[in-house]
Amino acid sequence: MRGSLPTPVALTAGAAAPGKEEATLEASLPEAFEAISDYCATLESHFGDMQDIEFTIEDGHPYLLQARTAKRTAHAAVRVAVDMVSEGVLTKEEALLRVDARSLEQLLQARLPAQAELSARGIEPLTVGLPASPGAASGRIVFDADDAVRWAAEGQEVILVRPETSAEDIHGMKAAKGVVTATGGMTSHAAVVARGLGKCCVVGSGGLRIDLQKRTVHVDGSGSSEALREGDLLTLDGSTGHVYTGALDVIASTTVDELHKLMSWADQIRRMRGYAEADTPQAARAALSYGAEGVGLCRTERMFFAQDRLFAMRCALLAVDDERRSRWLMELERAQRDDFVEIFQAMEGRPVTIRLLDRALEEFLPQDEEPLQAIAKALDLELEEVSKAAERHRESNPAFGHRGVRAGLTVPGLYDMQLRAMLFAARDCTDRGAPVELEVLIPMVAFTSEVEALCAVLNGVRRQVFAEPTSLFTCRVGAMIELPRACLIAGELAQYTHFFSFGGNDLTQTTLGISRDDASRFLPTYMNNLGLLARDPFTHLDERVAELMGMTLERAKAVRPDLIAGLCGDQGGSPASIAICERLGLDFVCAPLPQLPGARLAAAQARLR
Amino acid sequence: MRGSLPTPVALTAGAAAPGKEEATLEASLPEAFEAISDYCATLESHFGDMQDIEFTIEDGHPYLLQARTAKRTAHAAVRVAVDMVSEGVLTKEEALLRVDARSLEQLLQARLPAQAELSARGIEPLTVGLPASPGAASGRIVFDADDAVRWAAEGQEVILVRPETSAEDIHGMKAAKGVVTATGGMTSHAAVVARGLGKCCVVGSGGLRIDLQKRTVHVDGSGSSEALREGDLLTLDGSTGHVYTGALDVIASTTVDELHKLMSWADQIRRMRGYAEADTPQAARAALSYGAEGVGLCRTERMFFAQDRLFAMRCALLAVDDERRSRWLMELERAQRDDFVEIFQAMEGRPVTIRLLDRALEEFLPQDEEPLQAIAKALDLELEEVSKAAERHRESNPAFGHRGVRAGLTVPGLYDMQLRAMLFAARDCTDRGAPVELEVLIPMVAFTSEVEALCAVLNGVRRQVFAEPTSLFTCRVGAMIELPRACLIAGELAQYTHFFSFGGNDLTQTTLGISRDDASRFLPTYMNNLGLLARDPFTHLDERVAELMGMTLERAKAVRPDLIAGLCGDQGGSPASIAICERLGLDFVCAPLPQLPGARLAAAQARLR
Repeated sequence: MRGSLPTPVALTAGAAAPGKEEATLEASLPEAFEAISDYCATLESHFGDMQDIEFTIEDGHPYLLQARTAKRTAHAAVRVAVDMVSEGVLTKEEALLRVDARSLEQLLQARLPAQAELSARGIEPLTVGLPASPGAASGRIVFDADDAVRWAAEGQEVILVRPETSAEDIHGMKAAKGVVTATGGMTSHAAVVARGLGKCCVVGSGGLRIDLQKRTVHVDGSGSSEALREGDLLTLDGSTGHVYTGALDVIASTTVDELHKLMSWADQIRRMRGYAEADTPQAARAALSYGAEGVGLCRTERMFFAQDRLFAMRCALLAVDDERRSRWLMELERAQRDDFVEIFQAMEGRPVTIRLLDRALEEFLPQDEEPLQAIAKALDLELEEVSKAAERHRESNPAFGHRGVRAGLTVPGLYDMQLRAMLFAARDCTDRGAPVELEVLIPMVAFTSEVEALCAVLNGVRRQVFAEPTSLFTCRVGAMIELPRACLIAGELAQYTHFFSFGGNDLTQTTLGISRDDASRFLPTYMNNLGLLARDPFTHLDERVAELMGMTLERAKAVRPDLIAGLCGDQGGSPASIAICERLGLDFVCAPLPQLPGARLAAAQARLR
Repeated sequence: MRGSLPTPVALTAGAAAPGKEEATLEASLPEAFEAISDYCATLESHFGDMQDIEFTIEDGHPYLLQARTAKRTAHAAVRVAVDMVSEGVLTKEEALLRVDARSLEQLLQARLPAQAELSARGIEPLTVGLPASPGAASGRIVFDADDAVRWAAEGQEVILVRPETSAEDIHGMKAAKGVVTATGGMTSHAAVVARGLGKCCVVGSGGLRIDLQKRTVHVDGSGSSEALREGDLLTLDGSTGHVYTGALDVIASTTVDELHKLMSWADQIRRMRGYAEADTPQAARAALSYGAEGVGLCRTERMFFAQDRLFAMRCALLAVDDERRSRWLMELERAQRDDFVEIFQAMEGRPVTIRLLDRALEEFLPQDEEPLQAIAKALDLELEEVSKAAERHRESNPAFGHRGVRAGLTVPGLYDMQLRAMLFAARDCTDRGAPVELEVLIPMVAFTSEVEALCAVLNGVRRQVFAEPTSLFTCRVGAMIELPRACLIAGELAQYTHFFSFGGNDLTQTTLGISRDDASRFLPTYMNNLGLLARDPFTHLDERVAELMGMTLERAKAVRPDLIAGLCGDQGGSPASIAICERLGLDFVCAPLPQLPGARLAAAQARLR
């Protein structure tokens, strides 16, 4: 349908067929405008999309200089596409293909005007960090979590500025409108917690030099030798990583009726199910409102970051014997059980995939000695014993260390506790007649024996919780496929599991041998300066990772043809990756919450293409 | 040949056929002994191996209680096997299969008596760490590298005891007979450097509590509340990780003539070439004396650990501009060029595989601020600038970060310098008529574009060094295959490379997603307590890693049938892994130096089996 357009071209009064080299117009000015307007309609019908048209009128002749598909906001794009279906210009399928799936995220969260627009107004970012959690926010600078809470209580909107964050800062992160850190990568504490809280966040802003004593922050390369102080205004764009001085206009999130219509068309067409990440009952409720067909990934470790739970988790990890440990694990079990009940209820019988704890254990521990004293007291141990226990958890490469099922099988009681919480929560719900579809996900599987061992633990717990076998709810076991070895043993794993969840982030880390947190040292140079790499493999599924996924499915389905498989992680929200998932025949994609509508649309587009 | 042996059995005078249930002996005592001696010879011939025989004589009747293949030292095993060939009892092939390839390492380095023997004498280890570098040593405790040098100069044998080591300790490690650290894993600084120096070393002895101020070390769980002091005697067994108080008898390394004979038989039979790791000219000369057919892995980064070179390396890494950096790189180039010339000369035209720098850059940097002042001065920069530059090199998971070709392509001049040093060294040698076979190895390849870019750099350097193309020496380019993605793109890589070197350590790390330095948190529990894993995959090639290697070869040979491939890393010295390499059809194995004779034997055994 699309053809090359000759420019400039003189127009006759009345519509000229596009592609016709020349035409003349001899008419009055009003007639000239009418001719252009008619021609525009012809062009839009020809290209099937709104056009930006540049023209000139000389000596009464209108000349068309340029025509191109009009740029528009996501908002406008959705409206135009739906309108054009009403007008009969486009089919529903064409309308679905017309909207950029990546742009929908914009609709659903606060944002700043485009940088080009800001630049035109003379506004440039002060510094740029990593876009750790999308959205935009303005507020007054505070340097301390307690201050954030205090100022917010007084009605101030605040931005928490920290060298990095740790579990001690979570109450401050909750109180702030946004968070910015000087260090850390896309999976740093600040990034992970902010995404979980839905807070806008910029991390790894290397240019920030923060002086916590003086309560100032100086920005290298900003051209200003003057430091910003506590109380000064700052604006963050968590979608681009830009940080600005002052309070910029933040555009609130919007929903349009047309979006619901477009989404309903997408949902009719797409084959893959659209799941959302949700780590809390609140997030599960939000997921449902965003059209999630289930929770594809509930990261249980994130439930431990609240202050009281964190303390219990630390005590459990640093306890030197099973008796002490089990007391604190019991506290955690109570909390998780309550959370799970709420999540099951929120999802009203839709699948809820709960991943067993998966985070390097050292990340739960405090950075310095101070909080260890309270832990030692609570455990009735000497400070030195607790310090040594903490020291034993330190790792050289924590992302590839003692985490996931490795921790679950070697820290006595840890996974038992989580499985008990899940099954008791399911029982609590079914006792009240509420439907539950529980999917237990095992992270960091490298060996079949790990899954065997875990199934044995699960069966033991099941016997504890249910006196006799129950058919009141569904409980399926699945493996995270995030290590190349797991791909290779997919046939064996399929004997023990009902579903696979590809962990895109970790499978990329291990297949490429690139720590995501450290990738910023060279990947940007590879992409932008050396031309060695076209796209960020942590955003767009790498073709070779996709090849491994294909091999995995082939091996697994040879053993269990009805095995369910899907993609989790940040790539689950990327349209290009979703297209690969469709090609591979995956059954679901699981996207971070704000990207879910885009993922549903991308799944439909992939089906159509 | 082997059959079940009935015990006890009474013997007739004269040889009885094994397997015969009963026999009687009526004879005098001397006749009884003679009967037993004859029977022994029959058994040894039956089992084709030396027998340990237990017997009793009651009422003039000799009763055989038990017979089993005799345990013996490696020394004795080699001698017995060779003797049995001379006596015509065994063929050469049978003799080769008779000796445990793993045991040869014992012959070539100092060792302690077996622990069972020590236990019988009431000697138990004080504590156990990781066996980081084999051999055994006794000496007086020192806590500081400078003290080690001073005491050694005074004729003392010393053991350097450190919390961990860094580049500042190397002169002390050289002066000491052995090194023990409280922290660190098998690839920690202490472990890597000690293996390079051929020093016995135990790392990660978590039980050691070292007080550097008081110059004492206390051992947890030793039952003694008394600390050891500077000057006290200590003995290390780097092959088992055992640490003992006092000076135990260290059995010196031995070579036996029979070993040379056995090795010559092995060399006639094996198909795979036997290369050695050698990072220094001394090591290259030693490799030759151990029968290396070439240097399979020269780790150039280890050449930077000497104090003056380390300073230049730090200056190069922390320089903020190309001009400053290139000055320090030039210093390193001179040093590397001299080393390479010596290595080429030592190897007399045999292949020398030089790996471009491959180590997380942060590992070259000092742990604390103090050494940065001298660097700042040398670079004519402010301390703060240098500190910030150092900070930028810190990584969350350094083993999966900015290392290998990633550093080579993004730190301007770094790989150019190394390639220049190699080619100039080759020119220096060929100018004098010395033959050179240079193989340039690119580490951490994940993308074909990396190899393309590196080949472009190499061609540029080649034009700098040689005015016109030379055929005076061979220069081949190879890729380390140590990331699963490299396995998958093997076909593409084979278009640009002449050989592949499988990096067993890293390929295991990435395929299994296990950081080797952190594996001790759970792998021992998996193996010893939970029965989830039969063998340590860092010692024995994992079957799935082997599968990936097989896939790699298939893809590569489809493109380049004459591609040469081999295995490097610690598994290169493991007989079980070498058997897998034979099955896969690899062309060479590259073993750590002390394991080379064992590797040559294992290669012959694999060929025979």
